[in-house]
Amino acid sequence: MAPSSYQSAIDEAKALLGDRLSTGSSILQTHSHDEAYSKPCLPDAVAFVQSTEEVSQLMKICSRHKCPVVPYGVGTSLEGHVIPIHGGISVDTSLMNKVLEVHESDFDAVVEPGVTRTQLNDELRATGLIFTVDPGADASIGGMASTRASGTNTVRYGTMRENVMALEVVLADGRIINTGTRARKSSAGYDLTRLFVGSEGTLGIITKITVRLFGQPETISAATCSIDTIEAAVDTVIMAIQMGIPMARIELLDDVQMKGMNIYNPDMSFPEKPHLFLEFHGTEAGVVEQVDMFKAAAEEFGASDFQWATKTEDRNRLWQARHSAYYAGKALRREADSLVTDCCVPISSLAACITKTKQLIAKSGLIAPLVGHVGDGNFHLLILFDPNSTDETNAATALAASVSELALEFDGTITGEHGVGSGKKKYMQAEHGEAYSLMSTIKKSLDPNNIMNPGKIVDVN
Amino acid sequence: MAPSSYQSAIDEAKALLGDRLSTGSSILQTHSHDEAYSKPCLPDAVAFVQSTEEVSQLMKICSRHKCPVVPYGVGTSLEGHVIPIHGGISVDTSLMNKVLEVHESDFDAVVEPGVTRTQLNDELRATGLIFTVDPGADASIGGMASTRASGTNTVRYGTMRENVMALEVVLADGRIINTGTRARKSSAGYDLTRLFVGSEGTLGIITKITVRLFGQPETISAATCSIDTIEAAVDTVIMAIQMGIPMARIELLDDVQMKGMNIYNPDMSFPEKPHLFLEFHGTEAGVVEQVDMFKAAAEEFGASDFQWATKTEDRNRLWQARHSAYYAGKALRREADSLVTDCCVPISSLAACITKTKQLIAKSGLIAPLVGHVGDGNFHLLILFDPNSTDETNAATALAASVSELALEFDGTITGEHGVGSGKKKYMQAEHGEAYSLMSTIKKSLDPNNIMNPGKIVDVN
Repeated sequence: MAPSSYQSAIDEAKALLGDRLSTGSSILQTHSHDEAYSKPCLPDAVAFVQSTEEVSQLMKICSRHKCPVVPYGVGTSLEGHVIPIHGGISVDTSLMNKVLEVHESDFDAVVEPGVTRTQLNDELRATGLIFTVDPGADASIGGMASTRASGTNTVRYGTMRENVMALEVVLADGRIINTGTRARKSSAGYDLTRLFVGSEGTLGIITKITVRLFGQPETISAATCSIDTIEAAVDTVIMAIQMGIPMARIELLDDVQMKGMNIYNPDMSFPEKPHLFLEFHGTEAGVVEQVDMFKAAAEEFGASDFQWATKTEDRNRLWQARHSAYYAGKALRREADSLVTDCCVPISSLAACITKTKQLIAKSGLIAPLVGHVGDGNFHLLILFDPNSTDETNAATALAASVSELALEFDGTITGEHGVGSGKKKYMQAEHGEAYSLMSTIKKSLDPNNIMNPGKIVDVN
Repeated sequence: MAPSSYQSAIDEAKALLGDRLSTGSSILQTHSHDEAYSKPCLPDAVAFVQSTEEVSQLMKICSRHKCPVVPYGVGTSLEGHVIPIHGGISVDTSLMNKVLEVHESDFDAVVEPGVTRTQLNDELRATGLIFTVDPGADASIGGMASTRASGTNTVRYGTMRENVMALEVVLADGRIINTGTRARKSSAGYDLTRLFVGSEGTLGIITKITVRLFGQPETISAATCSIDTIEAAVDTVIMAIQMGIPMARIELLDDVQMKGMNIYNPDMSFPEKPHLFLEFHGTEAGVVEQVDMFKAAAEEFGASDFQWATKTEDRNRLWQARHSAYYAGKALRREADSLVTDCCVPISSLAACITKTKQLIAKSGLIAPLVGHVGDGNFHLLILFDPNSTDETNAATALAASVSELALEFDGTITGEHGVGSGKKKYMQAEHGEAYSLMSTIKKSLDPNNIMNPGKIVDVN
């Protein structure tokens, strides 16, 4: 049962939104969790907002009653970002799903937060332009901005940090602001756009996003190869970057992950050792040159089993293994639950960090396949465990914690792209030191009543 | 004479720094202005700091006495950023000029704020890596971070926003924070790095900068061509970007600027019409392909007078005209003073915005050559006027103001790369609306006594 002050907020929100303010139990259930292995919490109500003005009215109501507000995209976040741990109203943006403007000459588009990345790319098809950020899940662009998402082609095209040009945001008190213009760059004051990107709904609700687009490459080529050790694989990538090869994707999959691949895709039979999966974008001649240069570099580090493809169906077949990584990982122990974590370190430390991680996995007794966006120094672990075993559950949690600690030892960050949510808040002090108190100062100044997704990123009193 | 509270701060600073705290009149003079056409103001003292710890001690002193502090790099800012308009202490970082770390495999370096960009590139020479941001002046990297500088090769490599990975900052109260790690990306909380980049010393003093580096390109090629109209020149660039040509620099110079070129470089005889100056980076074959593709695109829009060069000396000769743009512009009226302004608009509006700007120049009766980073939608005006004529001085100021207003009409920003300082503060409300009050909220929360470069970017009470 909602506290009485929340109930007043809910009543007023109901008057504002009618049927689009729901307290139905299945709706509450859907909005009680994301894809993290975290305890779900029900919101007291879910608001299906349709416009910025509505969000503003809703925030004024919630601000008056000090009722928590948790923005919700499609629920694919991985650290409990959308879990209403203090109750209140979950603000679902799925009805705000229009691509508002596409500016072909300016390589940008303005979208509502509920637009998903595949929806945007579908609507862009005729323009020859693409939105490049690809975190795997078909996340909403509002959610991707909120968590500073990235993914497989960040090494070439950047994260949401680089690909969000401006935002419209509704603040805790209902004020509506625009954080930028459509100009490609600006030196006009504090970078509010970047302040809100990655703030996980703790500073305001994103109601419009101007995203950067790129031209569809003339030619795309895909390649895979196997390499005996993680170290050789990372060294190959460092050399390829030093050579200036503009790789669009460069993914590392470890031996355990490759074993899962073979189980999940019975028609495949990869050698069970580390693999690199690559994609090259450019002109026809440029792509051939990139592949040749990469092959030469990789062979110096003992790579073998080269395959490459340019035709769409061949590329898709080649990359299917990478795209099915999650299910292939799960195939290693079908009955298990999974806990996903990520971290990011300087690329020169990546091999050492992964080696230590694999030692910790061995010690834990668990199976945990590893996939990395190696060009960025970012890797993921899919930790498989039996949720009915307290020992295994503890071991899984401890392993995830160790990965965060290792990342800090290697001058890295506790999360490269998954975010903090409630899951990683406990490591924030260790990563940021005194700077963490500054996050708290900023949070308090923008949200003095602590109603914006309270309990995420930083605690305030 | 310094107010007595400042005098107490200065006395304590003297005890801390000895001879490195100066009140000598020529030193005060040097720190009273930058390259803006703004009224100089003397600081009460200049502190030549040598370490982060010293800056921290100094900030504690100034915080206790509410004494203004103005960070100073090399004084090449263009909007009065370093002018101590409320007196206080100018903190000169020129003695903090060490390149502390270069991580070749990670493509990053850690530098002190007084390191200049050419110094860094000189020290990087043996590594095959380059720091790419080039605002023209040999600015300090601390200053470039503070003003979110960019320049000619932003279109390929990004601005300081993209090229600063992390900062060490001393806050108003003397606390020392680190805003990030050396990981290439992170989703661990608010993006404090981007908050300080472009904050012009109003939120803290930058004492260490981790910058991103790139591999030196295998081949560099330069090209120039003339095009009949600004519109055709911009359309050429839009098409070249759509074709995916990864141009490293793409500069527009208008007919007036080209006239100045011919005067300043007597051995040159460019046709007096708009020109594009380009640079291509890549493999040998890749660069040839880029040039060919660009030439084909440009010819569709009527470009002529193509020249290109790959050998260093030929490239330098070709680009010398562009690199001497400032002096060439001044050569149009040698006895005049100059007022420099910039703005940035979506590239689809650039031709229209420049056309309107040129109409305003004609109306003003002044000479004002124009140079643009056309790939970013950013252009500069060098307004020449007689400082002894009130009419001309007013006309110059009015013209600069009109350019800011035009930029906003075209959904752009009042400054693409020069910053706000005190010069452009008056347009901030018009650009940012309600968001401008958020900048004030942030400023107050981080610097409650308003001692960090007060009067710049945003006024607080």
